[in-house]
Amino acid sequence: MPPLLPALTALMTLTLSASVAADVQRIEPPHWWVGMQQPQLQLLVQGPGIAARQPSLQAPGVRLKSVQRLGSPNYLVLDLELTPQAKPGWLELRFDGAGQPWTQRYELRQRAPGSAQRQGFGPQDAIYLVVPDRFAQGQASKTLPAHLVEATGTRQDPGARHGGDLAGLRAHLGYIAGMGFTQLWPTPLVENNGERYSYHGYAASDFYAIDPRFGRHADYLALSAEARALGVGLIQDIVLNHIGASHRWMQDLPSPDWVNQWPSYTETSHAHMSLLDPYAAPSDRERFASGWFTQQMPDLNQRHPVVANYLTQMSIWWVEEAGLSGIRTDTYAYSDRDFLARWTARLMAEYPRLNIVGEEWSPHPAVVAYWQRGKTNHDGYRSSLPALMDFPLQGALLAALTETDSHSGGFAKLYEALSHDFLYAAPEQLVLFAGNHDTPRFFSLLKEDPAAAQMALAFMASTRRIPQFFYGDEVLFTSPAQRDDGQVRAPMPGGWAGDVVNAFSGQGLSPAQREMQAFVRRLFNWRKTEPLVHSGQLMQYTPRDGVYVLFRYQPAQKRRLMLVLNKNEGETRLALARFPEMTTGLARVRGALGGAAPQLQDGVLTLPARGAYVLMLDE
Amino acid sequence: MPPLLPALTALMTLTLSASVAADVQRIEPPHWWVGMQQPQLQLLVQGPGIAARQPSLQAPGVRLKSVQRLGSPNYLVLDLELTPQAKPGWLELRFDGAGQPWTQRYELRQRAPGSAQRQGFGPQDAIYLVVPDRFAQGQASKTLPAHLVEATGTRQDPGARHGGDLAGLRAHLGYIAGMGFTQLWPTPLVENNGERYSYHGYAASDFYAIDPRFGRHADYLALSAEARALGVGLIQDIVLNHIGASHRWMQDLPSPDWVNQWPSYTETSHAHMSLLDPYAAPSDRERFASGWFTQQMPDLNQRHPVVANYLTQMSIWWVEEAGLSGIRTDTYAYSDRDFLARWTARLMAEYPRLNIVGEEWSPHPAVVAYWQRGKTNHDGYRSSLPALMDFPLQGALLAALTETDSHSGGFAKLYEALSHDFLYAAPEQLVLFAGNHDTPRFFSLLKEDPAAAQMALAFMASTRRIPQFFYGDEVLFTSPAQRDDGQVRAPMPGGWAGDVVNAFSGQGLSPAQREMQAFVRRLFNWRKTEPLVHSGQLMQYTPRDGVYVLFRYQPAQKRRLMLVLNKNEGETRLALARFPEMTTGLARVRGALGGAAPQLQDGVLTLPARGAYVLMLDE
Repeated sequence: MPPLLPALTALMTLTLSASVAADVQRIEPPHWWVGMQQPQLQLLVQGPGIAARQPSLQAPGVRLKSVQRLGSPNYLVLDLELTPQAKPGWLELRFDGAGQPWTQRYELRQRAPGSAQRQGFGPQDAIYLVVPDRFAQGQASKTLPAHLVEATGTRQDPGARHGGDLAGLRAHLGYIAGMGFTQLWPTPLVENNGERYSYHGYAASDFYAIDPRFGRHADYLALSAEARALGVGLIQDIVLNHIGASHRWMQDLPSPDWVNQWPSYTETSHAHMSLLDPYAAPSDRERFASGWFTQQMPDLNQRHPVVANYLTQMSIWWVEEAGLSGIRTDTYAYSDRDFLARWTARLMAEYPRLNIVGEEWSPHPAVVAYWQRGKTNHDGYRSSLPALMDFPLQGALLAALTETDSHSGGFAKLYEALSHDFLYAAPEQLVLFAGNHDTPRFFSLLKEDPAAAQMALAFMASTRRIPQFFYGDEVLFTSPAQRDDGQVRAPMPGGWAGDVVNAFSGQGLSPAQREMQAFVRRLFNWRKTEPLVHSGQLMQYTPRDGVYVLFRYQPAQKRRLMLVLNKNEGETRLALARFPEMTTGLARVRGALGGAAPQLQDGVLTLPARGAYVLMLDE
Repeated sequence: MPPLLPALTALMTLTLSASVAADVQRIEPPHWWVGMQQPQLQLLVQGPGIAARQPSLQAPGVRLKSVQRLGSPNYLVLDLELTPQAKPGWLELRFDGAGQPWTQRYELRQRAPGSAQRQGFGPQDAIYLVVPDRFAQGQASKTLPAHLVEATGTRQDPGARHGGDLAGLRAHLGYIAGMGFTQLWPTPLVENNGERYSYHGYAASDFYAIDPRFGRHADYLALSAEARALGVGLIQDIVLNHIGASHRWMQDLPSPDWVNQWPSYTETSHAHMSLLDPYAAPSDRERFASGWFTQQMPDLNQRHPVVANYLTQMSIWWVEEAGLSGIRTDTYAYSDRDFLARWTARLMAEYPRLNIVGEEWSPHPAVVAYWQRGKTNHDGYRSSLPALMDFPLQGALLAALTETDSHSGGFAKLYEALSHDFLYAAPEQLVLFAGNHDTPRFFSLLKEDPAAAQMALAFMASTRRIPQFFYGDEVLFTSPAQRDDGQVRAPMPGGWAGDVVNAFSGQGLSPAQREMQAFVRRLFNWRKTEPLVHSGQLMQYTPRDGVYVLFRYQPAQKRRLMLVLNKNEGETRLALARFPEMTTGLARVRGALGGAAPQLQDGVLTLPARGAYVLMLDE
């Protein structure tokens, strides 16, 4: 269930933060709340020469505990404590020094009821991933502030901004909900002011501002509220590892070690395993974690306590502000490992039922498992991260559907990958996907075979995971087999005025596209209401003769879900006696997604064709 | 160090077991020892109608505790207890019943001094694997007992017996020791009386008899003694999972459940992971563990306590009898899992410093790790198996040397596979190989590239493992890339009288063969005396620019081993500053295998060519 939101009508009439005195250029977080689990609040205050000033504060229940100066003359760090006596309202901060004192108001707000206990996304959900610049445009012309560098380009240029926005996304929330999805994950919407190739959002120039090319802050809050009204939670994509080179900090670092500095430009090694490797050289771990992702993405130094605190408060701020049901964390393991442990612990302490999914792009289950909450690790590392993206199972799923079956290839890879669940503390919290914004389109990887695509999706929707779907896959988007971001993140047809083909209305779609879209709609709408998939136990069988079978069940119930993936061309006969633990005593079968029930006679199921069969068995 | 052997000159003049009364056809074990850690001894006695007889025994210190009848009229099981008062010598077993009592003598022997504390093979060792039928023939004509079915064929027929024997192996022990190897693993030598394709030895028709086509029991004991005199320990290859269809049991099963029975022939699924899979169907586990390996290899039911005891005593018997330094266990996980736990516990209780290496042919480190002593498993399974064959690292090693380097391919695979050592309770006890009798020849898999082959071997010899080498690889044996046992197990040139090429003398070898043989000899003779490889710590670096580097070191020593694998064609320059933890303050370098030292100037090492560099660094 999506989280509770603060009263939005009230909120949207306020400006994002208090107006700022001429000499205090910025205070972050822009506002805060009383009644948080953690009473400390750290303000990063920016203004010319402000480090020479002496801050003070008089407010009931709020105490200025300490002041830090970081190196740059233009920042001050104020450590506040909000006691239980603190009340919502405006604080007055005073900065004494040469000349007049500067004063600055700062707002403490009331939390929305139930905010701390919000229910994050989980196995009961299915996630729809969109790249907002490429999904739909609701407002073709916008008045943009002058500081934004890159203009909206043409939809023919795969690296340019295409102009998709929050208004477009809001306009199609009904489509997303109607497809059966209960969570929305947009790639980052915060301001990215790079000169070019800025649409993707992973190079923040402002952690607290919605990029005006996507819309206003209020539009983002409206997206969240409207989605929630449709039963769809909002997952924010947050980058902790780096900023964009266009971030103002890069013109005036609060301290020299605010970002990880190297004698000359040093890129991360991408050697994720150096962190786990018992034989790793410390210098290799340093290069992985503190090397830069690209020259345009300066690497934040989360070992700096103020940087760490900044990122933590920023994450909490968005959860509270936008009523999030969860966070997706980009380039997870690239951040400082000890910081991640504290960051996840703090978030989960504030919101015990929130979910956070980390992107750890490794094909190795032992590596992904390392980062999950509850895992006992060889080196004693303890994380509080509830969920991870399941790259290992995604790789196995695609291999299973493209390789010839053998003792170790094809379906055996899927079987063996799922068997590795014993490595995870909570496999049901892993997010499984067939493709995302960084991988080739899964339909292309599956050689544009609709039956294979349906098998992949049916597995994703039926197994013990949280499924994540990528926009456009329902209308059979394709891409080169080698990574090609521009092609992968193609505009959704119907998202722009004048589009001849419209994926939302169905107009102009080919029969194959319509069929896949209808399959996806049936699959995820069925999943939404089937508790066996949300919380049932799982039993899988050794693949044999081109057929892979798993069951979801509750020991006390006779009703069982049977997923059959059939690679064989033409009609295939499957004896239920092969699955004695799950089929003994059950004689009725129906297709869970509707349509004609497959024939079951004398204990033999007749599967008409190659493809996915989502079946319900009963007495 | 190889184990202590009993006084062989004395032993070899004894027959293998006491002569057997006409009506007692067989007692197993053929003899036993006093002073074992475990006082129980279970005798399986075979004779026509013997189950109707009443056994008894009068001997000081030896007690007949119970008698079991199994179903067949022709077997009796005698459970004896050997108290500390039991003395070496002959017992008289008496079998009363209709007509005259049958009597049968049974010998209890004195153990060799130090037997229990023998040192098994370990990281200080390098293993040479031979297929005895294909290695060398010492005695071209032998008088063979009439019951043996398959005659020696021609060396042109890859599935036939070629006639290699123990005499041939003994004749070339000097060659093996001279190459630097300290352990010998012959594939099984026990009697295999199949009609055809019987040479490989994995289908025993008699667990206690050396196959007469290989020689006599005394020849085997002599092999062990002579090897030991050369500093070479003997590892016996023991099959617990199955017997050959030609085993006498298959004519007269001691009990109906002596082998795993199925309504119709049922082959194992080879689904190793079903045992670990938290989602496995019990019927899948049963099919994996109790299905037959082939129709010619009936699957033993180790859940039957007498079968389990038989296999355990048989294994101990060979260790004690032949002075083994270890056991290699074929098709390890295919046996009953609980039996394996007890079997390894019993062996290690009798011989606390013995080694046993299990063959668990899985590419997944988490699967191999499951079976090792000391591993904390998700399902509570506890094994006492010290060592496993390292199939995961072998696969990664070959991939590393054939694939193009990328973040996830080529050398990254080797790096990531070794990083997975955190999954193992004792990675230094894993046995690493480039190829064995069941895989294609590694030189062929490496596209017959001698530099790649040297890199594989140098890694094998330098990393934290027990290396295992396969006969013939030193003279560049080749095979098809798909498994082809006959080609892989080709006769060693020089092993047969009249061979024009002779790998042992070097006669007729090509320059490339001579060079590889000399490299192997230098490599393993160096390894034999280099404690950094036996017990040093390991540090590896992220592969970069076509170069993979690892170090072996002791923190208190400045002297360090540096292994460089260089994939680049032509001269390559490598700055030692890339490896600060291991090279700071070290300025001298020499090649550990002799030859000219690579140039080290201004901290830059010049590697003349693509290939392996085994270097010693010093102050």
